[in-house]
Amino acid sequence: MNIFIHQTDFTIADFTSVFNKIKNIFDNGAEGLHLLPELGLTGYPLQDLCLQKPFISAYLNLLNQINRYLEKQKDKNIIVFTGGLEYTLDINGVPLSIHNVIFELTATTPMKKIYTKRLLPNYDIFDEKKYFTSGSGPVLWNCHDTTIAVMICEDMWPTNTNQHIPTVEIAELAAKENKKIDLVVNLSASPFNVGKQENRVKRAKEISQYLQAPFVYVNRVGGEDEILFDGSSFVVKCDQVLLEGPKFKAATLEIQLDFSNKNESRHEKQRPQMKTDNTWESLYYPRIDLTNRPATLQLLSDNDCNEILEALKFGVREYAKKCNFSKFLVALSGGLDSSLVLAILKLSLEKDQSVQAIFMPGIFSSPVSYDLAYAQAKTLGVKIFSMPIKFLHSAIKNVYKDSFGRELAGLANENIQSRLRGTLLYAHANDIGAIPINTSNKSEIAVGYSTLYGDSVGAISMLGDLYKTEVVTLANYINRNFDNLIPEQIITRKPTAELRENQADEDNLPPYSRLDTILEAILSYHMDIKDMLQLGFEEHEIKKVFNLYINSEYKRQQFCPIIKVKPKSFGFGYRVPITKDGRFYTNYNHKE
Amino acid sequence: MNIFIHQTDFTIADFTSVFNKIKNIFDNGAEGLHLLPELGLTGYPLQDLCLQKPFISAYLNLLNQINRYLEKQKDKNIIVFTGGLEYTLDINGVPLSIHNVIFELTATTPMKKIYTKRLLPNYDIFDEKKYFTSGSGPVLWNCHDTTIAVMICEDMWPTNTNQHIPTVEIAELAAKENKKIDLVVNLSASPFNVGKQENRVKRAKEISQYLQAPFVYVNRVGGEDEILFDGSSFVVKCDQVLLEGPKFKAATLEIQLDFSNKNESRHEKQRPQMKTDNTWESLYYPRIDLTNRPATLQLLSDNDCNEILEALKFGVREYAKKCNFSKFLVALSGGLDSSLVLAILKLSLEKDQSVQAIFMPGIFSSPVSYDLAYAQAKTLGVKIFSMPIKFLHSAIKNVYKDSFGRELAGLANENIQSRLRGTLLYAHANDIGAIPINTSNKSEIAVGYSTLYGDSVGAISMLGDLYKTEVVTLANYINRNFDNLIPEQIITRKPTAELRENQADEDNLPPYSRLDTILEAILSYHMDIKDMLQLGFEEHEIKKVFNLYINSEYKRQQFCPIIKVKPKSFGFGYRVPITKDGRFYTNYNHKE
Repeated sequence: MNIFIHQTDFTIADFTSVFNKIKNIFDNGAEGLHLLPELGLTGYPLQDLCLQKPFISAYLNLLNQINRYLEKQKDKNIIVFTGGLEYTLDINGVPLSIHNVIFELTATTPMKKIYTKRLLPNYDIFDEKKYFTSGSGPVLWNCHDTTIAVMICEDMWPTNTNQHIPTVEIAELAAKENKKIDLVVNLSASPFNVGKQENRVKRAKEISQYLQAPFVYVNRVGGEDEILFDGSSFVVKCDQVLLEGPKFKAATLEIQLDFSNKNESRHEKQRPQMKTDNTWESLYYPRIDLTNRPATLQLLSDNDCNEILEALKFGVREYAKKCNFSKFLVALSGGLDSSLVLAILKLSLEKDQSVQAIFMPGIFSSPVSYDLAYAQAKTLGVKIFSMPIKFLHSAIKNVYKDSFGRELAGLANENIQSRLRGTLLYAHANDIGAIPINTSNKSEIAVGYSTLYGDSVGAISMLGDLYKTEVVTLANYINRNFDNLIPEQIITRKPTAELRENQADEDNLPPYSRLDTILEAILSYHMDIKDMLQLGFEEHEIKKVFNLYINSEYKRQQFCPIIKVKPKSFGFGYRVPITKDGRFYTNYNHKE
Repeated sequence: MNIFIHQTDFTIADFTSVFNKIKNIFDNGAEGLHLLPELGLTGYPLQDLCLQKPFISAYLNLLNQINRYLEKQKDKNIIVFTGGLEYTLDINGVPLSIHNVIFELTATTPMKKIYTKRLLPNYDIFDEKKYFTSGSGPVLWNCHDTTIAVMICEDMWPTNTNQHIPTVEIAELAAKENKKIDLVVNLSASPFNVGKQENRVKRAKEISQYLQAPFVYVNRVGGEDEILFDGSSFVVKCDQVLLEGPKFKAATLEIQLDFSNKNESRHEKQRPQMKTDNTWESLYYPRIDLTNRPATLQLLSDNDCNEILEALKFGVREYAKKCNFSKFLVALSGGLDSSLVLAILKLSLEKDQSVQAIFMPGIFSSPVSYDLAYAQAKTLGVKIFSMPIKFLHSAIKNVYKDSFGRELAGLANENIQSRLRGTLLYAHANDIGAIPINTSNKSEIAVGYSTLYGDSVGAISMLGDLYKTEVVTLANYINRNFDNLIPEQIITRKPTAELRENQADEDNLPPYSRLDTILEAILSYHMDIKDMLQLGFEEHEIKKVFNLYINSEYKRQQFCPIIKVKPKSFGFGYRVPITKDGRFYTNYNHKE
């Protein structure tokens, strides 16, 4: 059987492109089974869109349009499986239930639902139980004498509810109906994070071995705000990878699988045990090396860096494209974060895109910052403008003194510089029609080491899911692989916000290597003080980090979308109230 | 039986206050049944906190502390029902399941779980299926010869899943066990919205009649970011309200109910039918008067205005208190929104709190704006400072021209004024340690008629859930009831952003009365163009509003928390992706 994997990259609700794709498969496609991703008809994630009548009407129109088109087709041996939605509406058109399903399309019959997703992920960024109703049982679909076990995304993963494991129930169904499964198909819309593909392939191999059939995994491609879908569709047969699709790129893959040996004796091997552990912890794959004291964050490997780099390039490109921008703008400070953002933007540019930099020195900016920012812009061939804030800063201080009869000093005076930069960055972005890219990193965001409406501004954050030490690793990786795009001195100089005389980040914060590990322990491991003491950290530094973390929630709630490259990120899947009594984080009882 | 309703107002995770409350009930309370709200031991909503080990440890400590305390008590006829969490942890302390339960506390036995919440709300702001596992059946709890049917919050409401209706299943259980239900108890953490109390009481009466027993409703008090809990606990018996607690205020209510007539013949009346319609639509109670052409937004009644006013006062007070602020700051523009915010803040002030205003005229600000802002500040006795932005605005234009060789003009020049004001507002807020209150209204937020990091700044938004026409109604209500706190001319003058010569909001937007109705149709009714044409609107204005709405999603995602007073609000419960193909909103097919 010829199998075609279409890892499509349609924008959410771009029904025109979806229809053209289907039409194209029937008009020009080869005979065989054509597979599109989970919700291939609509895109994913839809969130509240799937409840809105204009969306529902347009989607139902698409289904009609497809059916009218199929009616006119001559008999052809083309079968399409695609993900889509099945609505049950009340008389006013309000959805009573929504199923996340697989439709079968053929040239001879109207489209037909063949399966409803059973495991609805509802953790982290996933809200599927908010919108969808789950299906009630496993399905073995027969087409052209081939028995196909169908799944949608989460159905392949372990569950901690112990209610049902779709894979196991598929095996039971096959046994009961005395069928041999020829093929397992999983249509997915699976968000990227670093290292995830390895887990997908590993799990698919387990299932392939368990069900004794090849496993075809189809994943969508796209960047939707903070969430990236990487494609990377693949086919495995037992422990062998037969095919693997590109990352972050639409593609059609083809493979021929032979199911002719129908009558081979189905010797009941001992099936491998299907794992069921899927706890909150195991979902987030914390990256701490627990063998060191103090424990340390696991270094990003070259492979990780490469994956992350591709993801970040794709993420900003997608966001810009879908918001109709072709120009990027970065505020270069002479520090590492903005420098890395500029280098990655430069690497990501497509033919019709461009990037500009703006350098806004204040009274505390060192001349070295100017030199480094300009040196990098020159190396990269990026246009850079300088707009000093010294004069405006002092003008504000004067007007402030006239108005309020007091000097602007301390934190207020630090913040005003940062906010002035934010304001000017946006003025220039508005003026030239560019999209300003945020340059904060995950360490800063976690401890609130940034100014709201100041250096925290931007349409989308490129590095907000990388700790500062990871920013360094990624910068070094880029310099090794792309001809020193970042001046070495930017990587090695002491991080500083330059908002007061001789300021250094690590005056206010623990050293980044310790800070980042504590943060990962808090965010991905949900550890408490006792756990972290055992990892070799000092009580005072743990408490300091907790206090900074607790008191900066309000800044995170107004942050821009952060391109997600880790299992646990700030953003849509991170939900913590601002108003709370945070004493429980730091009330450590030594007697325990 | 003596029943005590404790509508508590503890901050989330304030375990000290919770323990003291329990201790106080046993030390000083009268004999009888004492009721605390849903999750009375932890506060609500917890979101990710309930997954974090420091939270879990502190909570389990509280349970131990309560049990140790109860052990030492002498036998007393005091029973406490309180909401809390029941954790099942793996060996690493990671939650395998979390139940939202009712505990019974007595002086003689350790605390005991008696019920697990069955219906877990998972729409709008509710994410309970993300965190909790639901209980499996109804419970009739016996204490001192009294049969009590217990429920938690959502359990009393209709369900659209048709799986189970807890009230009906309670009746079935009572029939099966041949018990007479003496009392129905519902522990809630039910968010406020205007008109909700009426619905709660109505539903409670239905259930009381259905189960032929008095119904006691216990609700928590508190403001948690955008969500308010109003208390308003009550007792009904059939169609009679026996008791109603205060709104937005902690209180202990007492009532004596007589269950002595145990042997009255249980004549099986025809039970009223329990309604089961709980669609997405019915949850949001859209406020459109469909009898007019064009349809109009339902006017807020005096009663609505009073409820909303109390809610907004409470909301800002709670946010400030929980974030440790005692000063408020408002940027007065001479327009209605900021003027209303100031009036409400003034009305909300407690003894140790204060409010200041800052007026920041630009080159397009009319002298009338100055007069009106100062007149209001004088009437209210609020300190007001003027900090003109004219000079700074022109300084920025000069520096911009020097840096980029071009004039700052058009939208960039409009936005810069707004952002400069945002920057200066925060400078002053930082300087005096005040909390800046956002002054945007729901109409502006819906169509993006605001500048990101400009007039959209603030720690919390007071009016962000009220359309502009509702802002007018509320202002008039306040003037009628509180001695003209808002200069009449501010209410009647034409709304303008004053960012260019002779600008008026309605030059860029449809008239607010039409705009607001269209927005309510989009947001709460999820209507499409066809529906709105039938309501008497013009295709071009509907499309204009849709386009403004679609293209401003990115601004809403960086907005501050908005005090929620309506069933459908922007904020945590509103989830729409920025990147999407929005053509489906406006592709209207005339042939349909």
